[in-house]
Amino acid sequence: MRACVFFFLAVIAAFAQSNSDAWRSQGVIDVDHSPHATLHTVPIHAVQMGDGFWSPRMRTNVERSIPTMLEELEQHGIVDNFLRLSGQKQADRRGPLYTDSDLYKWMEAAAFVLESGDRPDLRANIDRLTTIIAAAQEASGYLNTYYVEDRKDKRFTEMYRSHELYCLGHLLQAGIAYYRATGNRNLLDIGIRFANYMVENFGPTKRPALTGHPELEMALVELYRTTGDRRYLDFAGYLLSGVEKERLHLTDAQVNYMFSGIPFTSRKQFEGHAVRAMYASCGATDYYSETGDPAYLETLRKLWTDLVNRKMYITGGVGSRAAGESIGEPFELPNAQAYGESCAAIGNMMWNWRLLAVTGESRFADVIERALYNGINSGMSLSGTLDCYRNPLESTGEKIRNEWYDTTCCPPNLERILASLPGYFYSTGPKGVYVNFYNNSHLDWHLEDGTGVKLDQKTEFPWGNTVDIAVTPGKTAVFSIFVRIPEWARPAQVTVNGRPAPGTAEAGRYFEMRRTWQADDQITVRFDMTPRLMAANSLVRENTGRVAVMRGPLIYCLESPDQQAVSVSLFDMELTRPAEPFKQEFRRDLLDGVMVLQHTGRAAEKPLENEPLYQIAAKVSRSATKPIELTFIPYYAWANRGLTSMEVWVPLK
Amino acid sequence: MRACVFFFLAVIAAFAQSNSDAWRSQGVIDVDHSPHATLHTVPIHAVQMGDGFWSPRMRTNVERSIPTMLEELEQHGIVDNFLRLSGQKQADRRGPLYTDSDLYKWMEAAAFVLESGDRPDLRANIDRLTTIIAAAQEASGYLNTYYVEDRKDKRFTEMYRSHELYCLGHLLQAGIAYYRATGNRNLLDIGIRFANYMVENFGPTKRPALTGHPELEMALVELYRTTGDRRYLDFAGYLLSGVEKERLHLTDAQVNYMFSGIPFTSRKQFEGHAVRAMYASCGATDYYSETGDPAYLETLRKLWTDLVNRKMYITGGVGSRAAGESIGEPFELPNAQAYGESCAAIGNMMWNWRLLAVTGESRFADVIERALYNGINSGMSLSGTLDCYRNPLESTGEKIRNEWYDTTCCPPNLERILASLPGYFYSTGPKGVYVNFYNNSHLDWHLEDGTGVKLDQKTEFPWGNTVDIAVTPGKTAVFSIFVRIPEWARPAQVTVNGRPAPGTAEAGRYFEMRRTWQADDQITVRFDMTPRLMAANSLVRENTGRVAVMRGPLIYCLESPDQQAVSVSLFDMELTRPAEPFKQEFRRDLLDGVMVLQHTGRAAEKPLENEPLYQIAAKVSRSATKPIELTFIPYYAWANRGLTSMEVWVPLK
Repeated sequence: MRACVFFFLAVIAAFAQSNSDAWRSQGVIDVDHSPHATLHTVPIHAVQMGDGFWSPRMRTNVERSIPTMLEELEQHGIVDNFLRLSGQKQADRRGPLYTDSDLYKWMEAAAFVLESGDRPDLRANIDRLTTIIAAAQEASGYLNTYYVEDRKDKRFTEMYRSHELYCLGHLLQAGIAYYRATGNRNLLDIGIRFANYMVENFGPTKRPALTGHPELEMALVELYRTTGDRRYLDFAGYLLSGVEKERLHLTDAQVNYMFSGIPFTSRKQFEGHAVRAMYASCGATDYYSETGDPAYLETLRKLWTDLVNRKMYITGGVGSRAAGESIGEPFELPNAQAYGESCAAIGNMMWNWRLLAVTGESRFADVIERALYNGINSGMSLSGTLDCYRNPLESTGEKIRNEWYDTTCCPPNLERILASLPGYFYSTGPKGVYVNFYNNSHLDWHLEDGTGVKLDQKTEFPWGNTVDIAVTPGKTAVFSIFVRIPEWARPAQVTVNGRPAPGTAEAGRYFEMRRTWQADDQITVRFDMTPRLMAANSLVRENTGRVAVMRGPLIYCLESPDQQAVSVSLFDMELTRPAEPFKQEFRRDLLDGVMVLQHTGRAAEKPLENEPLYQIAAKVSRSATKPIELTFIPYYAWANRGLTSMEVWVPLK
Repeated sequence: MRACVFFFLAVIAAFAQSNSDAWRSQGVIDVDHSPHATLHTVPIHAVQMGDGFWSPRMRTNVERSIPTMLEELEQHGIVDNFLRLSGQKQADRRGPLYTDSDLYKWMEAAAFVLESGDRPDLRANIDRLTTIIAAAQEASGYLNTYYVEDRKDKRFTEMYRSHELYCLGHLLQAGIAYYRATGNRNLLDIGIRFANYMVENFGPTKRPALTGHPELEMALVELYRTTGDRRYLDFAGYLLSGVEKERLHLTDAQVNYMFSGIPFTSRKQFEGHAVRAMYASCGATDYYSETGDPAYLETLRKLWTDLVNRKMYITGGVGSRAAGESIGEPFELPNAQAYGESCAAIGNMMWNWRLLAVTGESRFADVIERALYNGINSGMSLSGTLDCYRNPLESTGEKIRNEWYDTTCCPPNLERILASLPGYFYSTGPKGVYVNFYNNSHLDWHLEDGTGVKLDQKTEFPWGNTVDIAVTPGKTAVFSIFVRIPEWARPAQVTVNGRPAPGTAEAGRYFEMRRTWQADDQITVRFDMTPRLMAANSLVRENTGRVAVMRGPLIYCLESPDQQAVSVSLFDMELTRPAEPFKQEFRRDLLDGVMVLQHTGRAAEKPLENEPLYQIAAKVSRSATKPIELTFIPYYAWANRGLTSMEVWVPLK
């Protein structure tokens, strides 16, 4: 019976996918036909973002970040690496072995932009690059600019480091995004040729394959969703099955670091390279959504708990150590030394997006919101042209924003998130439509039964605490609208047409309003946005006696330019336990407009660094302090005013 | 005038060194003729260590550690690496590029043992190895088992990593130690041939030289002291002058990491690789003691303050990060993630030994004591056959002790410290004799005017708090005896023949007793050894709200096998603020005999790891706790009972 249902669903999926217009309705990921997805995505073009918090970031992304990054990629020879293979350029290959992926990720970002409206310049660039890439592809389908010439005989012999399959994954994602934006398959077909080469030559009874840097797994599932060709799903399953440890002579240290090479379902905790771990989990979730293998869901839930209860920064960042760019031990969450690679926070968001689709549980959206507004949002400067690789939670003034990194994985990753952002705001399910996140925006889509639905969201979120949603169904109909009540939003109030909606709007849940909806129905959601002091588990050593200030989804920080001029540093200041509330002021002139929070604190009269390093505890005299006004800004906006010191976790007196 | 004095002293030095018996009076370092040394060393053979704290460690070192390590070195091909060069072995070279140094350091340790009394087996092994090494030396003097054959043309082309000069430094130190033990120059002469090759071919107007891993600097100064040949001192000065950054195309990152390559006197703080930084500082101090260049002393004092006030573990360990085995930012002193390489604590001790000689200031001996009893002493298992590379201050049970490391720098380094230990206990100065450290021991040496002096020290230090010193001068004479009052020893009392000695015995100073000393005079020193709770500067984030227990020179820790069986881990326990004193009990059966400390504390009823990672501070409820007896053991003795959890900095309620 179950097999029959599955077969039936597969047939529907194949049908939908064979429809030549299918690309028009596919979201950032396309789970509309995934048998084990609870929520379904809406295409990016179905959501128009209005003015508000994200629109200046998205505009800067399109107008500054994306064009600048292409220039950087061209200047650093990343495009030439392809041109030289087709004899159009005489030059040495440049950059580390994974540079192809950076260009593909840029193309994916540009393709996502096109989903929100045509941009002939961007489209022309993607088409030009596609031609260049196609010319570099070998007849076999193999495509990689590093494993050529002298290194040709090393192909697939050092998969633990080679990034050949990582690059293929990003090629496929770029091809899929461009196809979903335009219906043009040229780039996708390049990826398919290489994917076919893999499927035909590698596998349990053929040559062994391994994703030394997971990424291809999720790309292959997406390719299956796009083409209906089950071989890609099966190959993703083969990669996740991790059965090639012996044939590839992998060490324990390697499988820990790579987060691949042993069965994904044997994992009990996160370890190793943070981005690899996140991407592997994305692939495993995608695989689950198609296959329903319960061992995957069990492992994914265990890993999620491990991350969210023990290893995630309050900013949604992941990765405690520079050494190995790795996830640390449980509760090892240093602030100044935090690695928190932008790509890892993005991987965290991408993974939780998949978990949200699978389960429909709001807590996964909570993690997305935390990462998106904080640990991802901090990754790109307000100017859009300087990116962070690391996102520490404390700094004495190091230069963390740069125009270019030789390993430039993060910048185009940030660009693809911003470009695809509209696709995350709404979902659909069998019962109706879900409002996942809050920003001025307009959804023009349809319920799963085909009834049109428009939602017009007006809000000053995350500065304001009210969201108005005007509902316009294609026809008067009974269905549900689910609004997400974030975990921090207690209490929250929801009204429909001015009257309290029946039921309790519980924080950390979607609040369902099932009723007959008709034109001009109006939902209003109000959140408590009082600034709150957050404490960490006392096993997080660095945060003992410290608090982080949070307002709505935003984590705040102290940054040196905002503090009163005193003779001591930021690190000699402490927050006074609140008797009075925080002063809140929206400063349009500051950092492109931020809500500033102020509270009294105290500053040491002499720098603490002059105190002895170790002394008898009974003899420690609290150094003299004086009152001071502390000014907090949102964490994401720090490091936009030169080299500054910054602190998220502030001592509480 | 000053030049004349200098010339005069140099002549004396040269005379002393030409004396064929000079080797008999030379200490671990020989500063007897160093114009800028305040204290002078006594030879190792002048001090007989009696039973007590160190003698079992030293006996195990001679009987187990040193023989086992030679076996390991032989088994891992480190000796074969030499034999293959003289055609006595057909085999591939084995091990990393610096393995020669490990053998030399083993030879130095063995030579130090011989200074305390002949051991024909050890002597025979050194002689055998010397013959093997000599046969591998090239006619030019060049000697290195890595830069041969295919790699021959890379000699001195990659000094930032090659360790060629590091190996030479250890060869010279081994040769000097064996010469000082036996008068046999064979090994020394091998080193001299290579040193001459360097001096003749490298320099500001010749080929450029660099110590990519400092070490040769101090060895060259010691070679100058041993031979009187000033070229070696000058070459050490050239290396420390750091003038070859341009000729060698060194990057800023390289000179930071190596702690060489720019003028030593331009350094303002510690950074980079911890062992490199410590060894470079040793060399610079040695260089100062011969030249008196004030820029060196100023830099050394600045660096010392940086280390001791901002970057040193309470155990005397150095090096916060695994990444680059490096010193971190000021106050970056994580506990579980501490690197604290044994070699770095040893380097810290060696450096402070040199600073003590230069200045005569007790605070340098305080650092030696801190490192020796804690961060060095922890490095070797009680069995003597398992060594730590890392010395963390907290552990969830990782395997930190191993028989062998491919980079086996630490084990023979620990062995040479234990073998040379008698040489650190006493010093002389123009006014008399200095008692630096406390252990049952017998000094049979002479004052600087030639008057014989014997000191017979009886003590149960560091378990007992009393030291009795019987004084037997060669003849009744007026001179000073200085006893060191450790910084932790407040108050301390000193009596001579049962009556309080005039003056105040101030902690952190040498206490001078100047009088007419005659046979049977008896000094007694009593220290306060009440266990104390130590606090760290509040800028050390990990130690906020925590204390370390210290008793005398020993840092204590909680280790899991000693705690009451409860359902939670060590990390869910806290110390109750002392109302009553610690219970103290010497347990002869435990860990080769340790003073155990006990105090009431509290343990959480449920593991803290199940608490939320982040929550609203006002809602944090202190989890329920119950009283528990906490048992502390000395830090150095941890990890001798399998894989255990351990914590030095304990939360204080």
